[in-house]
Amino acid sequence: MDPNESGADPKGILAAVLTPMDEDLKPDHEAFAAHCDRLLAAGCHGLSVFGTTGEANSLSVNERLAALEALVKSGVPMKTLLPGTGSCALTDTVRLSHRALDAGAAGVLVLPPFYYKGVSDDGLFRFFAEVVERVGDARLRLYLYHIPQMTGVDLGLPLISRLIEAYPGVVVGTKDSSGDRERIMTLCREFPNFSVFVGTETLLLETLRSGGEGCISATVNVTSRLARRVYDAHTSGKDDEAEALQERLTQLRASIEAHPVIPALKVLMADLTDDREWRNLRPPLSGLDEEQTKHLLSEVPLAELL
Amino acid sequence: MDPNESGADPKGILAAVLTPMDEDLKPDHEAFAAHCDRLLAAGCHGLSVFGTTGEANSLSVNERLAALEALVKSGVPMKTLLPGTGSCALTDTVRLSHRALDAGAAGVLVLPPFYYKGVSDDGLFRFFAEVVERVGDARLRLYLYHIPQMTGVDLGLPLISRLIEAYPGVVVGTKDSSGDRERIMTLCREFPNFSVFVGTETLLLETLRSGGEGCISATVNVTSRLARRVYDAHTSGKDDEAEALQERLTQLRASIEAHPVIPALKVLMADLTDDREWRNLRPPLSGLDEEQTKHLLSEVPLAELL
Repeated sequence: MDPNESGADPKGILAAVLTPMDEDLKPDHEAFAAHCDRLLAAGCHGLSVFGTTGEANSLSVNERLAALEALVKSGVPMKTLLPGTGSCALTDTVRLSHRALDAGAAGVLVLPPFYYKGVSDDGLFRFFAEVVERVGDARLRLYLYHIPQMTGVDLGLPLISRLIEAYPGVVVGTKDSSGDRERIMTLCREFPNFSVFVGTETLLLETLRSGGEGCISATVNVTSRLARRVYDAHTSGKDDEAEALQERLTQLRASIEAHPVIPALKVLMADLTDDREWRNLRPPLSGLDEEQTKHLLSEVPLAELL
Repeated sequence: MDPNESGADPKGILAAVLTPMDEDLKPDHEAFAAHCDRLLAAGCHGLSVFGTTGEANSLSVNERLAALEALVKSGVPMKTLLPGTGSCALTDTVRLSHRALDAGAAGVLVLPPFYYKGVSDDGLFRFFAEVVERVGDARLRLYLYHIPQMTGVDLGLPLISRLIEAYPGVVVGTKDSSGDRERIMTLCREFPNFSVFVGTETLLLETLRSGGEGCISATVNVTSRLARRVYDAHTSGKDDEAEALQERLTQLRASIEAHPVIPALKVLMADLTDDREWRNLRPPLSGLDEEQTKHLLSEVPLAELL
């Protein structure tokens, strides 16, 4: 059964979708929608647009809203979307979340406010509480986006627990990009009704076996098919097959991760689509240099991708 | 001579202006303008609105623009303003900088893009270069805002040097909130035509003696008079007096800094103006608790403030 057929909460393989940019570094709406379609066709259950991989915080709120409208118009199924709506500013997160829900998104993935460091759990709780109250929409399904290597902000388990308790049925899950295996397994174990998505498909099978929902990953932009096969093998009880597929998935991820991931993925997409525009990145991100590009393309077999 | 009389570049004592918020946590435009007037009357040469202290990154771009318009309308002299226009998104920084220059601001204080960590100097250079090119305004005077404890991004001296060389007369100065004495003195020494503002008035006199321009500081929201007296004593060659005043200024700063600074300053402003609204903070920042508040108010003599 495809989880998205049922209108259920997102689960399985979600790509943290890249945002293609034109020469002026504006999101290329057409290429963006085409990439979303491509990922769904390649087996993704869902699409987490406007996350770290999507360079969303390098876009203005208006640019994020315009790109979302373009997806709506293009016919990308909205129930597959789990858009990032995180921002340093409460009012921006509220505005983006409102619009995502109105468009029919399955939920929203929300960063903690990430400008100030060393803030208290009370301050973080109050931020998420204000988001929930101000959005004030029964359709709100909020996923906590934990990526401390970018935000410099810790979403500790006591805070998560407090949010789940305060907003049951609203604070329903997390994407955990910490890479902290112990933490992720603890989340799966201690919060059984909470949807745990791991941020790297390296831990996909282990997360699924521990009761997690799946992964939301950057590299899934190019590994969708294989990641989906791991998921399907697992859910149909083919443990050995799942294990073997996971091993290959982990190798592929490692070859990509040997380089700065977002630029590397854009190089691969440029080659896969034969469209150099894909290499564009908004500063502060920079493209791979010639040597890195060569090395990446020699290490990662394009035929295995997407 | 008051530097602002001459229409010269900003120098001296600048407050990193607090943003008063109403019960709904919206900027209170009237109280904001009144505070700007109060700071200028108390001796500030200039006003750095929309920085870290001003909770600017907790405001949407539209909220920052609306608050700037309110200052324009209220008659706060625009040439005294050095507004923060930093953001993670290139397009936001460009939009805010455009508007600040059109309003007549003396310059703009620009953070490096602070979402991504571990980015290259090339990526950071390209960000600032794009800001300069896209703003495309001969009036642009760009000050680099270095506050690595919040941004997690280093503005190294080679990068600063490269920016000064690429954009002479445009990249003209810095606010350095690193608290790194050696770095600040090196900046003063090695970049003689570059305006160095230190982020804490603890180092005010030392910075001035090393050829720096002054300070842009959070605590100046309540220490303007005293900070100005240090500046005036220094510029009129009264070294002993300057030293004694600096000592008292350093003590005052230490008493405030013993607490989270922005909440502490808002407590002091609430007491000084007898307006509890001043205690409001946008999450993720939290107010001081009762005990902290009591301690702060017992340590800092209100009569010495502003």
